[in-house]
Amino acid sequence: MKGAVLYGPRDVRYVDREDPKIVEPTDVIIRMSATCVCGSDLWPFRGIDISNQPTAMGHEYCGIVEEVGREVKKIKRGQFVVGSFFASDNSCPICQSGYQSRCVQAKPLGAEGAQAPYLRVPLADGTLVPTPELPPNELVPGLLATSDVLGTGWFGADAAAVAPGKTVVIVGDGAVGLCAVIAAKHMGAERIVMMSRHTARQQLAREFGATDIVTERGDEGVACIKDLTSGLGAHSTIEAVGTQEAMMQAIRSTRPGGHVGYVGVSHGVALPGLELFFAEVHLLGGPAPVRRFLPELIDLVCQQKINPGKVFDLELPLEQVAEGYRAMDERRAIKTLLVP
Amino acid sequence: MKGAVLYGPRDVRYVDREDPKIVEPTDVIIRMSATCVCGSDLWPFRGIDISNQPTAMGHEYCGIVEEVGREVKKIKRGQFVVGSFFASDNSCPICQSGYQSRCVQAKPLGAEGAQAPYLRVPLADGTLVPTPELPPNELVPGLLATSDVLGTGWFGADAAAVAPGKTVVIVGDGAVGLCAVIAAKHMGAERIVMMSRHTARQQLAREFGATDIVTERGDEGVACIKDLTSGLGAHSTIEAVGTQEAMMQAIRSTRPGGHVGYVGVSHGVALPGLELFFAEVHLLGGPAPVRRFLPELIDLVCQQKINPGKVFDLELPLEQVAEGYRAMDERRAIKTLLVP
Repeated sequence: MKGAVLYGPRDVRYVDREDPKIVEPTDVIIRMSATCVCGSDLWPFRGIDISNQPTAMGHEYCGIVEEVGREVKKIKRGQFVVGSFFASDNSCPICQSGYQSRCVQAKPLGAEGAQAPYLRVPLADGTLVPTPELPPNELVPGLLATSDVLGTGWFGADAAAVAPGKTVVIVGDGAVGLCAVIAAKHMGAERIVMMSRHTARQQLAREFGATDIVTERGDEGVACIKDLTSGLGAHSTIEAVGTQEAMMQAIRSTRPGGHVGYVGVSHGVALPGLELFFAEVHLLGGPAPVRRFLPELIDLVCQQKINPGKVFDLELPLEQVAEGYRAMDERRAIKTLLVP
Repeated sequence: MKGAVLYGPRDVRYVDREDPKIVEPTDVIIRMSATCVCGSDLWPFRGIDISNQPTAMGHEYCGIVEEVGREVKKIKRGQFVVGSFFASDNSCPICQSGYQSRCVQAKPLGAEGAQAPYLRVPLADGTLVPTPELPPNELVPGLLATSDVLGTGWFGADAAAVAPGKTVVIVGDGAVGLCAVIAAKHMGAERIVMMSRHTARQQLAREFGATDIVTERGDEGVACIKDLTSGLGAHSTIEAVGTQEAMMQAIRSTRPGGHVGYVGVSHGVALPGLELFFAEVHLLGGPAPVRRFLPELIDLVCQQKINPGKVFDLELPLEQVAEGYRAMDERRAIKTLLVP
């Protein structure tokens, strides 16, 4: 088969790769229905955290089970399945407490390269969640979104303790931040403030349930949030960027005793201890334990109660994956769907 | 009256100061039954964060109400009262959510200098909690402890989400860390691990309910905690020091999804974002909202269900306050009680 490989900064190619095969008896092979480009794929695409080896890319996936390892018990050939970007056994004490992305056996799916027509998924029984039946095509983008971008936004909102009556601020208007709006709305937030200066993203945020848009950033952005909240700050803030500026904007926008959920992969961040001490906010973040949320999210998508597939504003054949990266890098697209 | 004043590094004197008087109509004046030296007083005593002005010292207090401002409604002359080191109105939205140390009107009591025979307490109705009746002398040390050291340890345990069945680690064997043992025991922790290499403190930790002592620090200490927890780390870790080493030891000792409550006043700490991201622990800390816990803690002390007064292993007349600082600085005493 062919698949996406990153050779160097801004050099993604659709090239021959080995067909994936069962390695461990707990693996399955899926035939990809759709995959996509993640905001976090842009870091190595831009030359940050890049490997010096050609690297298979992609970690978001959904598709049909083609082949099943001999120790796989729950997942069956022919099922439509979604999984997270971390394979997990879903049974260790860490998984059982809801942190499957830090499973004692966690394996990053990125290493397998999901931007390809076939994918090996380790620990299949723990990792994958099947849909009740084969979904119609129009639900595939939404189901794909549950694999990472929606699951990550959901974790951000959960980590930020979003609840009915709360004022929620979202820092970062990428696909994860936009999905966090869906989550905050679903969790009953009273006020959802999206910090964005990009018209198309503001529009989608409003469609998903944002009640306010703040275009200012940094100290000015924080001042706007204080103005909106009687000087107190938000109850819950979701950080979906990963930079120092975004983290400090999130912490400073939150009231004492409030919660910051941070899901942007951290790049060059150092949190000043004394400011954090006197900020007195709850902090929780990291790679989202998407597996915890998958059954609920798949259900919400299948019942068409939410439509996270709208974050895909560009759809390309998989062989045009390089253009998919470029469009996101240049912010011409929020998120690129790739169809084999 | 006389009171403790810091003139420079290691130069605390008991000198003439103005008698405190009612300034705002919401103030009261209390006659001190006992006060003490805090671990955080040692930072300026050692020349760190020191003011270049002579500074009245002390922020822990309990005593008898002598004089009441005209707008004080609940607190009465003659009551025995305890308050926190932050005055708070106990009615603003931040107070109502349990973060009185960040009250919109919060005023640090340290500015008043509690190491003295009399003290002005602002926002008295919100700040002070009276005992049901005048306590016998032997309960005064325990009641004084609720004012900060116990309340702070309690907040650390609460912030670390200590609960029945949990394994709790405490980094820091000062009076706050030792009081955190009392809190963890009261909250039903199954295993309480004190990290300490000081025999007398280990002994008191065990008396308060610690089940294990770890003498190693840094990476070796973390490895010991992993060994004790099937490689996973603690559910709940309380940090009661405030240094980079202690914070990292606390974070690394905690399992993914676990909780770190940090109450050591932060000195030179910078938390590395990427490590924090992949640690995936809950973080909450800051100046303890002691007022939230005071009614319960006063009740527990008055009913003699807990005895936090044991952290005072040195009692001196107030005029010997300088020796009280020296004894703690040299670790000859855990905590010094001062009696006017």
